[in-house]
Amino acid sequence: LDWLKSSHDAGSGWLCVFLIGLFAGAVAGTIDISARWMTDLKFGICPEAFWFNREQCCWSSNETFYDHDNCSNWYTWPELLGLYDDTAGTYIISYFFYIAWSLLFASLIAALVMMFAPYACGSGIAEIKTILSGFIIRGYLGKWTLLIKSVGVIMAVSSGLSLGKEGPLVHVSCCIGNVLSYLFPKYGRNEAKKREILSASAAVGVSVAFGAPIGGVLFSLEEVSYYFPLKTLWRSFFAALVAAFVVRSINPFGNEHSVLFYVEYSKPWIFIELIPFILLGVIGGLIGTAFIRANIWWCRFRKSSRLGQYPRLEVAVVTLITALLAYPNPYTRIDTSSLIYMLFSQCSAANNDALCDYQRNFTNVNSAIETAAAGPGVLRAIWLLALALIFKMTMTVFTFGIKVPCGLFIPSLAMGAIVGRIVGIAMEQLAYHHPDWPVFAGECSTGDNCITPGLYAMVGAAAVLGGVTRMTVSLVVIMFELTGGVRYIVPLMAAVMASKWVGDAFGRMGIYDAHITLNGYPFLDPREEFTHTTLAQDVMQPRKNGSLYVLTQDSLTLADVEQLLTETNHNGFPVVVSHQSQYLVGLVARRDLVMAISQAKRTVEGISRESIVLFTPSVPSPWLGPPPLRLHRILDLAPPTITDQTPMETVVDMFRKLGLRQTLVTHNGRLLGIITRKDVLRHIKIMSNEDPDSVLFN
Amino acid sequence: LDWLKSSHDAGSGWLCVFLIGLFAGAVAGTIDISARWMTDLKFGICPEAFWFNREQCCWSSNETFYDHDNCSNWYTWPELLGLYDDTAGTYIISYFFYIAWSLLFASLIAALVMMFAPYACGSGIAEIKTILSGFIIRGYLGKWTLLIKSVGVIMAVSSGLSLGKEGPLVHVSCCIGNVLSYLFPKYGRNEAKKREILSASAAVGVSVAFGAPIGGVLFSLEEVSYYFPLKTLWRSFFAALVAAFVVRSINPFGNEHSVLFYVEYSKPWIFIELIPFILLGVIGGLIGTAFIRANIWWCRFRKSSRLGQYPRLEVAVVTLITALLAYPNPYTRIDTSSLIYMLFSQCSAANNDALCDYQRNFTNVNSAIETAAAGPGVLRAIWLLALALIFKMTMTVFTFGIKVPCGLFIPSLAMGAIVGRIVGIAMEQLAYHHPDWPVFAGECSTGDNCITPGLYAMVGAAAVLGGVTRMTVSLVVIMFELTGGVRYIVPLMAAVMASKWVGDAFGRMGIYDAHITLNGYPFLDPREEFTHTTLAQDVMQPRKNGSLYVLTQDSLTLADVEQLLTETNHNGFPVVVSHQSQYLVGLVARRDLVMAISQAKRTVEGISRESIVLFTPSVPSPWLGPPPLRLHRILDLAPPTITDQTPMETVVDMFRKLGLRQTLVTHNGRLLGIITRKDVLRHIKIMSNEDPDSVLFN
Repeated sequence: LDWLKSSHDAGSGWLCVFLIGLFAGAVAGTIDISARWMTDLKFGICPEAFWFNREQCCWSSNETFYDHDNCSNWYTWPELLGLYDDTAGTYIISYFFYIAWSLLFASLIAALVMMFAPYACGSGIAEIKTILSGFIIRGYLGKWTLLIKSVGVIMAVSSGLSLGKEGPLVHVSCCIGNVLSYLFPKYGRNEAKKREILSASAAVGVSVAFGAPIGGVLFSLEEVSYYFPLKTLWRSFFAALVAAFVVRSINPFGNEHSVLFYVEYSKPWIFIELIPFILLGVIGGLIGTAFIRANIWWCRFRKSSRLGQYPRLEVAVVTLITALLAYPNPYTRIDTSSLIYMLFSQCSAANNDALCDYQRNFTNVNSAIETAAAGPGVLRAIWLLALALIFKMTMTVFTFGIKVPCGLFIPSLAMGAIVGRIVGIAMEQLAYHHPDWPVFAGECSTGDNCITPGLYAMVGAAAVLGGVTRMTVSLVVIMFELTGGVRYIVPLMAAVMASKWVGDAFGRMGIYDAHITLNGYPFLDPREEFTHTTLAQDVMQPRKNGSLYVLTQDSLTLADVEQLLTETNHNGFPVVVSHQSQYLVGLVARRDLVMAISQAKRTVEGISRESIVLFTPSVPSPWLGPPPLRLHRILDLAPPTITDQTPMETVVDMFRKLGLRQTLVTHNGRLLGIITRKDVLRHIKIMSNEDPDSVLFN
Repeated sequence: LDWLKSSHDAGSGWLCVFLIGLFAGAVAGTIDISARWMTDLKFGICPEAFWFNREQCCWSSNETFYDHDNCSNWYTWPELLGLYDDTAGTYIISYFFYIAWSLLFASLIAALVMMFAPYACGSGIAEIKTILSGFIIRGYLGKWTLLIKSVGVIMAVSSGLSLGKEGPLVHVSCCIGNVLSYLFPKYGRNEAKKREILSASAAVGVSVAFGAPIGGVLFSLEEVSYYFPLKTLWRSFFAALVAAFVVRSINPFGNEHSVLFYVEYSKPWIFIELIPFILLGVIGGLIGTAFIRANIWWCRFRKSSRLGQYPRLEVAVVTLITALLAYPNPYTRIDTSSLIYMLFSQCSAANNDALCDYQRNFTNVNSAIETAAAGPGVLRAIWLLALALIFKMTMTVFTFGIKVPCGLFIPSLAMGAIVGRIVGIAMEQLAYHHPDWPVFAGECSTGDNCITPGLYAMVGAAAVLGGVTRMTVSLVVIMFELTGGVRYIVPLMAAVMASKWVGDAFGRMGIYDAHITLNGYPFLDPREEFTHTTLAQDVMQPRKNGSLYVLTQDSLTLADVEQLLTETNHNGFPVVVSHQSQYLVGLVARRDLVMAISQAKRTVEGISRESIVLFTPSVPSPWLGPPPLRLHRILDLAPPTITDQTPMETVVDMFRKLGLRQTLVTHNGRLLGIITRKDVLRHIKIMSNEDPDSVLFN
């Protein structure tokens, strides 16, 4: 029977994460399909079956799959109005429709967010980090947030704003996890257990956003979760597997490679390339830091100025500017995932974009790619890409923080891919023009192309994302899973490490931590070491002149206790042997005390204001006076306790690792005071010369 | 200045792991090269340059690279004796040399291990897990162990025994980490800090063994380390990167792919294949469990019987039997890595092993592989592989535990690859003979080969290794990095998960945990939940009839204290206010007390046996009698403390998360007793109905 019970116990956890994987996969698949359709809606429609996106529409027409522009079933908006020529009028009509749809989508979602679920905006990762550290934000993971964020992320992505869907999908997964956890009382009723489920949900989020299950687990481990025991690791792994499988099954596009940006390069990297790779890491760290600073500055400005009062107007203006600037540049007009894929790819016979305008002829698809001088198309592409980079960097700063669901991964990857591709082309041309340099001698002397600009784009993308988020292991694994490029592990690791170091040199916080600080969430960062030499007695309440509110175990009357309850609003009261000796007996929670008193008044006969409140296990006999109020059962006899001489380093460590909310401070067994989580957080802020009142508390 | 100091502080950690990566990479590279040379020595020699292995020898002769058997520079032993024909005599001479070299290598290393470094045997991972949990084994990570284990792993691998080099390389890396940490006082002098460095070293070990840096980091996280904060994660990541880079740079074989078992399959997997993949997971779990049980049973038998007294004889016998049985079967004669690679590979025009004897003709290297019936060679290969599987399973049970350096990864992978390949061929033939079955309809109807037996080998290898070690995330990542097969993540994850579940159903412990239990190491498993409802008062010492040895803060004479020191051998003594009140003041370590007393006797004048030992900060005045012995400064005023009513679940949690060695137990501020790590471990054993005396302690 014990075995059955314990296996049911364990089984319910696995079942819960299984369901989370299933639902999150289904939701993500739906979001994916809808977003593709709505993105194409900005350009045109499939009159035969309006619910088809361009690819499906062209596919149903049995024409060739790849030649998008010539598909006769798909009508662009000017074509639908009867304009088939390539004049300025056609261009302007397309431009107009593009802007109109973008504005419509963005305004709609902003309105929905403001009306139904204010928590559905942003990426949500900063808040989920805080929630997983033990802070409770009511409604943040509720049904409404789930619904509005799921719908919202479709529209936000479709509107062409500079944002991605991975952060919101992590939030959506956590909402699903929270909602489903109520089906399993073991997890729904216990906040600590629920957090384990939420950690697994966060892994599922990244798994479904990118089809990167292992990357998702590591993202949850490295970036999001506060406490990640091995059991949670295994559950996350299983949930991510289920989710990845569901997404793969739903995938209606017949994508042969189950990775998002599949790359295959014909040449391995050579040693000299480590220099530009590390350079890309440094650039990535700098871009990341600059982005974080600019974004935080702007968010602070929004909070403190009147701008914050017009969120819907802000969304509309940002969308308008984005759409206006994005359309003219072909590299910003296409959706960001396609841009990233194009930049990651190697030039081959099949690729006729301007980026691949080299002075060479492909005679055979399978022949080696020869090294060649860049044509004029490449130069023009570089200019357009540079403009696209400036556009992305600027607009993302203003976009991350407006009232729409909004992730950072895809814009960061895009910025990095652009920088990387440009550096890659420069290296490639350097090797072409100087094949005799000793550093190129080994690999580049054969006449084949030895430098692959696509690889630089991949490394650059990882570097910028690393600079923004400060991830390491999880980022490298996500890059593997996105591209299939396991052979480029050393370049990726080198760039990510360089990026992290450069970023940390200018500011230790990643974007999520920066937003946690900005919003004043009470987050006890597990990474920051507390190195000051203060002691518990320097931090505890009451301070020198204050007094500590305590109960005694057998001398207070009900009137005394009720007076204490009205005088103070503490959440708990220590119980001591007597006011004279102050030896600690235990801790009683305010809520339990109030409930027990009101219950006793109803049920125990003869209780009066003069009744003694007893916390001892037995009643001394003979007992004189009115019947006592026996509260031994609500007394916590094992509250966390430290001595007044305990170094704060140890105290902070205990709060982090044991997830404490408060600890009592004693000296030689006598109660001296109490240290709460808030006291610890304020003390840390004071010691690092920050404003202790910036910490929010509920 | 503060900034400089803190950056030097942080920098020394990074520098330390950098050096570890550098040295471990160099050592692993040397081991790799030497092992290849010595493995080939069993078959023949390169007379022109005896220090060349076969590949180098043939390469230097400018003949074609791949055609090993026809290389004229390389002489097999019979050829060196003038026997060029293919007679039984030639075979017997080859057989003899094979056995002789194997015996020589194995006996030599067993002798070296017994003489110089008894800790250099086995894989070492179980012990490193224990060390990282806080147990100290003197000399286990010392210079001698490092030297002998490095040399030993070369010979052990070359001797053809059924073992691998990854476990020993983890041990070697940890030795390097330990030795190098003494260069940095911050890490060398502090056991807790040193353990952070050792965690990174463990990651380096797997990184250099397989060229799998990310897998190494995750292996350290999931399997080896006890406490793995993010800082350690980043340092491990960096160290693994450096090590991987060094190994890649040393690599003298011009291997184009920087992954060990690079695979490239022409077809993606289809849904129906999930059934055999999960079946492979189940088989893997069963094989793993069976292996663990058999191996533990044998090791226990060795310990309890006279067999344990003849370790060198045991090594010789095991080697002799292994060599005798391995040579006749071509799949066991070649080294295990080559076998695994062969099993992972897809049949193509270049592969003319019997395994690829299908009834098809390759007209073009690039054309699709058509589905075909298996020829007689395949059937014969399956029989030989089945024999090889039985051989590997049996011999590995007897090999893991003998007195040579000995890892488990490669044998486990080989067993799984064999099972997987056989299942894969069965599926392939099923699909060939029944292409009309609906489950095969989609992919297999085109006439191309839709089932790749190599993929099954890969999945099977992961499943068996998962069954033996119970790893999940780290195993999947290692498989990626070994094979480059990111596209097969869902099959790998499904098999690994199934393997873990099946294995856990039959016994929750992986091979390393089983060996920890077998050896009685005091390891507080962070994974096992403690669910019993006992309280601290049920576990603490002294028991009901015993007495607690305490010091008082200001009433004992030096004679009393010295008597206490001789009467007991406790490592620490609580200090209380007085014998009557027993209010806890602090804890004093035996070592500090002994040192302080002997120092005071030498330096303070007038100290006599009647001097009062004072633990209070100030001396009461006026003071009568001989001068007091003031020991306030050696008193730990903040010992960890709990109340007697604390549930043991909380106590176990505190011991794990805070890494405690003991905690004092109080009631209302009065000292009642003490709970040490040993008490906790014994209590856990008792509650799970095991023998509490099996726990070893130093």
